[in-house]
Amino acid sequence: MAPLAPKTGDAVFASVDRVNAELFTLTYGAMVRQLLTDLEEVDEVNKQLDQMGYNIGVRLIDEFLAKSNVSRCVDFKETADVIAKVGFKMFLGITASVTSWDAEGTSFSLVLEDNPLVDFVELPDTCQGLHYCNILSGVLRGALEMVSMKTEVTWVRDMLHGDDAYELRVKLLKQVPEEYPYKDDE
Amino acid sequence: MAPLAPKTGDAVFASVDRVNAELFTLTYGAMVRQLLTDLEEVDEVNKQLDQMGYNIGVRLIDEFLAKSNVSRCVDFKETADVIAKVGFKMFLGITASVTSWDAEGTSFSLVLEDNPLVDFVELPDTCQGLHYCNILSGVLRGALEMVSMKTEVTWVRDMLHGDDAYELRVKLLKQVPEEYPYKDDE
Repeated sequence: MAPLAPKTGDAVFASVDRVNAELFTLTYGAMVRQLLTDLEEVDEVNKQLDQMGYNIGVRLIDEFLAKSNVSRCVDFKETADVIAKVGFKMFLGITASVTSWDAEGTSFSLVLEDNPLVDFVELPDTCQGLHYCNILSGVLRGALEMVSMKTEVTWVRDMLHGDDAYELRVKLLKQVPEEYPYKDDE
Repeated sequence: MAPLAPKTGDAVFASVDRVNAELFTLTYGAMVRQLLTDLEEVDEVNKQLDQMGYNIGVRLIDEFLAKSNVSRCVDFKETADVIAKVGFKMFLGITASVTSWDAEGTSFSLVLEDNPLVDFVELPDTCQGLHYCNILSGVLRGALEMVSMKTEVTWVRDMLHGDDAYELRVKLLKQVPEEYPYKDDE
């Protein structure tokens, strides 16, 4: 049987169960507020959001692969495009632009066209070090690790801190080679 | 200008921004897990989820009124139907059944036809007192309070605890009368 053709981001997004974005935004906001209360240190909250995102990404990759029909990407460039055009669309209903590749082709930026996590959010002065959307970087890191790419994902621009866009930097640290089931006697 | 006709739940749900339900489910799960770690006592987690939900409901009622074109309900029965058919649809993409009215018409049950919050969830033995979906009861309580109805909302059946459905009991405690801007000299 021929493999199924990969779906566009819009087609995948239309095919998955969805909930109201404002409910998600407010629930996420309540969670960040709770973490700030409980952990007190902004750095700890950043770490915790990243870890939560990682755990979520490790799970979401299965739905992504099952629903998108995306097969193994030939290189990191294709991976970047799939994240930007299919991944973000499928989960948040937005797309991102891939920009600023380095010369080696091992790191790129994702500039988000919209960001449903931050509707209604303003950071008080006490939270200037907070990466409010750190769950997203964690999700990416977790999901990519499940498909053999160890990455570092960091925020380089953040509109909540006065920048003109949301920009995530994704750096490939290590690509774990596939292990094939070679026969012992060969 | 004639008032706009109220929209069906499906029409409203189609008109709002949405995100992937699995992302929401996993994020909510991460939040509950975090609360269990930080607060330790299941009763405290129940309270905190209810309070978070209340704060969210207080905000969501605005989107609900703006997007649904629902106007003032003539009585508590109509309120119940609007919650079940429009409210749940608009936010979670599901509907609920209204059942088990008491003789006075001041309390009813909402039986959920589906519950996206609990996908993949199993409660360990240490969490038998946990009302995992308590954010929902809080949302209802908060939203209703904003339209002058003080209510008590409790879980009476919960499939995570082995029941055959999710059932919320909504009891009207007090209907705060509207205050009209009477002229001082009348």
